[in-house]
Amino acid sequence: MASVFGGVEGGGTHSKAVLVAADGQILAQTEGPSTNHWLVGVDKCIEVINDMVQRAKTEAGLDPNTPLCSLGMSLSGGDQKDAIDTLIEQMKERFPTLSQRYFITTDAIGAMATASDRGGVVLISGTGSNCKLVNPDGSQIGCGGWGHMMGDEGSGFWIAHLAVKTVFDAKDNLVAPPHDIKHVAKAMQEYFQVSDVMDMLPHLYRKFNKSHFAGFCKKLAEGAEAGDALCRHAFTAAGRGLAKHVEAVLPQAQEPLLSGDLGLPILCEGSVWSSWELLKPGFTEVLGKVASSDKFKGRFHGYSLMILQHSSALGGASLGARNIGAAVSLDYSTNVKVFYRHSFNGSQ
Amino acid sequence: MASVFGGVEGGGTHSKAVLVAADGQILAQTEGPSTNHWLVGVDKCIEVINDMVQRAKTEAGLDPNTPLCSLGMSLSGGDQKDAIDTLIEQMKERFPTLSQRYFITTDAIGAMATASDRGGVVLISGTGSNCKLVNPDGSQIGCGGWGHMMGDEGSGFWIAHLAVKTVFDAKDNLVAPPHDIKHVAKAMQEYFQVSDVMDMLPHLYRKFNKSHFAGFCKKLAEGAEAGDALCRHAFTAAGRGLAKHVEAVLPQAQEPLLSGDLGLPILCEGSVWSSWELLKPGFTEVLGKVASSDKFKGRFHGYSLMILQHSSALGGASLGARNIGAAVSLDYSTNVKVFYRHSFNGSQ
Repeated sequence: MASVFGGVEGGGTHSKAVLVAADGQILAQTEGPSTNHWLVGVDKCIEVINDMVQRAKTEAGLDPNTPLCSLGMSLSGGDQKDAIDTLIEQMKERFPTLSQRYFITTDAIGAMATASDRGGVVLISGTGSNCKLVNPDGSQIGCGGWGHMMGDEGSGFWIAHLAVKTVFDAKDNLVAPPHDIKHVAKAMQEYFQVSDVMDMLPHLYRKFNKSHFAGFCKKLAEGAEAGDALCRHAFTAAGRGLAKHVEAVLPQAQEPLLSGDLGLPILCEGSVWSSWELLKPGFTEVLGKVASSDKFKGRFHGYSLMILQHSSALGGASLGARNIGAAVSLDYSTNVKVFYRHSFNGSQ
Repeated sequence: MASVFGGVEGGGTHSKAVLVAADGQILAQTEGPSTNHWLVGVDKCIEVINDMVQRAKTEAGLDPNTPLCSLGMSLSGGDQKDAIDTLIEQMKERFPTLSQRYFITTDAIGAMATASDRGGVVLISGTGSNCKLVNPDGSQIGCGGWGHMMGDEGSGFWIAHLAVKTVFDAKDNLVAPPHDIKHVAKAMQEYFQVSDVMDMLPHLYRKFNKSHFAGFCKKLAEGAEAGDALCRHAFTAAGRGLAKHVEAVLPQAQEPLLSGDLGLPILCEGSVWSSWELLKPGFTEVLGKVASSDKFKGRFHGYSLMILQHSSALGGASLGARNIGAAVSLDYSTNVKVFYRHSFNGSQ
């Protein structure tokens, strides 16, 4: 199976695996649950990966007992060296026929490798959030990605948490809510199957499941679309939070990233981006201020928001191949779609 | 052992047990680790309680196989009916000789029962934070106490988290720190034995121990006392956060609580209060504004901060006895000490 390369996209909620040939042809794709090892633990993480890849081999008509040439994994939570080494060691030991070689990178880098080989900003907002600037020379600058205990601003979890916290604070008379909490409180009762805030405690501690908690964000998106002011407020705040990640890495962007026709390319990953219209007021507000600041006036002309048309497992496969001196040809132009363009003209 | 009543004070980090006679005489006292069942689980919680109480029986020269008359427990996290019922059921089943009857209340109510039978505000800032107003008629109004995922403002955990988050945000260029982070970053490296922010992840997730994380607050108090501006900032913010809990419950206070000589009695529980001088600027600022607000002008004359001189296990024992129609006589005057008095005079 010398010419088959595997890729994995591992998220906090869902995961995907893909098998590709050297010419970029997709041989098989499979799906699975969370593979964020911080959330599910190392054992569960590698079991899910093995299961997805082995199913993909079968789907592609390949022998499951023949190892892949390489397996490149783009994992949320995949950027601590010790943890990565442990994951790879355990995979080699427990699943010797899975792949000959392994490569692990972050979800952000895997996504970027799927979209382009010239760099840009990857801005993730799914269960969690993260931002990575990849310069044309390959250098990387990160912001965020520390998980729900230390950030995740603008993510699905963060939006769900903000809404629930607003209800707690209003009921406690601790902080006056910016808008009526009635709709959010009712949606919370329905989604979490609780009758009051006290019943939320198991969802926050004993039975805490980040992915499930973050799933409440979808209900809030529905509320926002139906016009609820507090739901809209939470998404506007998230848009602001996500744009602040871009602002944080922007000073490190090399000139070619800013001077292209599309302006700064921002690759948007994660399910919260499907609510772009709700994020937009906060997002454009922050980047508008950045563009007109003394530091960036005349230098930051605009930006494009892009979305992947294929799983970032593809980028993972490509990086995994490159890591062993091989290559997978990707047609980047079909891998991304621009869904929003903003250019700062002279009047701004 | 008809005349021996047991009491337990259960915190997020330490716990205490006490045995008292009906006349209030303390027969024995023991200590143990955390008994917050949200943090350590039900099994561990009741094992620690059993161990402390049985040791206390032995210390008092009593037969460990003879059940106490009642065991009143004042537990952090002790206010969800289902959870309390489970704890009591399990104790009866696993430790039949521990006590004849059981009573569980929150740490706040146990503390108040140790200090007074006329009510006041209990304001806890230890590992976590919580506030409870107990009116003279026994009615209770709470604010906070939801744990680190949904509050704990002004607590040891919250102060430690604020300081660490300030370091993360500064290194990410996400939020400019209000003061130089050098001292806090160095203290963080030493306390958590890490070399950079990435190494903090296990402390936040896989190996997360709230009590240990909150313990960093002590190092920050040392930094603040030595003059570090960011450390001082964190404690001022905590003082503000704690006072906001008082502000939140104040509208529900019955007149006698406000009109006494001491002003509003605020019983301060938890180790963070040992840094009162650091909390003071933020705390007095918020309550000063409340006193001069239209709503409270001329009604909120002042307040006294008091600290218990005995474990709130004593109040737990008293409530446990009352629950079975018995009584433990407590000399409230020796149970508390006023450590700060503030009166709002006409000029404010």
